[in-house]
Amino acid sequence: MNTIITIAREYGSGGRIIAHKLAEQLGYEFYDEELIEMAANKMGFSEEYVKENEEQKNFSFLSNFYSIPGELPVSDQIFIAESNAIREAAEKSNCIIVGRCADYVLKDHPRCLNIFVHAPIEERARRVFEVYDEDAPNIQAHIQKVDKRRASYYNYMTQQKWGQAENYDLCINSSLGIDLTVMMIKAAVEEFEKKDLEE
Amino acid sequence: MNTIITIAREYGSGGRIIAHKLAEQLGYEFYDEELIEMAANKMGFSEEYVKENEEQKNFSFLSNFYSIPGELPVSDQIFIAESNAIREAAEKSNCIIVGRCADYVLKDHPRCLNIFVHAPIEERARRVFEVYDEDAPNIQAHIQKVDKRRASYYNYMTQQKWGQAENYDLCINSSLGIDLTVMMIKAAVEEFEKKDLEE
Repeated sequence: MNTIITIAREYGSGGRIIAHKLAEQLGYEFYDEELIEMAANKMGFSEEYVKENEEQKNFSFLSNFYSIPGELPVSDQIFIAESNAIREAAEKSNCIIVGRCADYVLKDHPRCLNIFVHAPIEERARRVFEVYDEDAPNIQAHIQKVDKRRASYYNYMTQQKWGQAENYDLCINSSLGIDLTVMMIKAAVEEFEKKDLEE
Repeated sequence: MNTIITIAREYGSGGRIIAHKLAEQLGYEFYDEELIEMAANKMGFSEEYVKENEEQKNFSFLSNFYSIPGELPVSDQIFIAESNAIREAAEKSNCIIVGRCADYVLKDHPRCLNIFVHAPIEERARRVFEVYDEDAPNIQAHIQKVDKRRASYYNYMTQQKWGQAENYDLCINSSLGIDLTVMMIKAAVEEFEKKDLEE
């Protein structure tokens, strides 16, 4: 059975870097925006169209009221398509999936390790500035806006609470250290493998 | 400077066992109910009186309306006494403090590692039954009641949310493994020490 690591992350917490390092060190597949493409292709939506609706629904779900009667709202259609893509990826090989409520989608998967990466706002502002070279007039407000979007998308789609410990196996303040975070997640994966040998 | 590990935990998640193992392996002091005694002694309350009020305020804060005008409610007085005891312990030596909102009390401490330990309800029911030998008619409901008390105490005293990832450095689902959890926390402590050497 494949091992899946899902990574949810606060904006600027280094979740993506952590995911990349893990993928490299473990030799796992890596997914995030690609999933949108996969889902879009499957549903026959253009990638552009999905991205547009992805973003819209993060701010408001009003657009859903304009869907054709009897049809699922567009945001739900995309969520279903993406969920199918996530499940397909999980069946194909060991992988790491960033964002997209993957923890929720795979919650019945017996070898899925769900991670949430966060960090203090000052630390994230520094990273967004340095790594992403983003120069918003008020960078902290910008970060909080992105997170609010991620939270409301997750909360709406899953009826769970984004960043609530019980939804994840491991929540890590990445300011403890990026390499330490990677090491901890790898140790948890090894524990899975140890249990396999015992059984 | 001393290193402090605070451990908040869902009932039956093994948080106490983890704290004990850490204390043993790291050679740290261990505190929990002892803190109540220390605080009670300092304030001149009898230990019995503190315990009684501790429990009352967990169910309702109504008792606070009966305090003498101009005086702080009893639950607040006890909280302040306990907070002082926590700060004193943190100044005295490296230590591990279980519960008592210690993460919040020490939030400005530069070497404090805040942990939240949780586990799926079925796993906790099994542990409560096996380890504590508790035989409530409905053990899961009993566990949820204890956690609700812990959460409302924490939320009331700290104005933060119990079990919300951002309040802790590390939230761990202990069903990954008790020894793995201990190892992860120790690795984070070592990271502190490494940073000291670099500075």
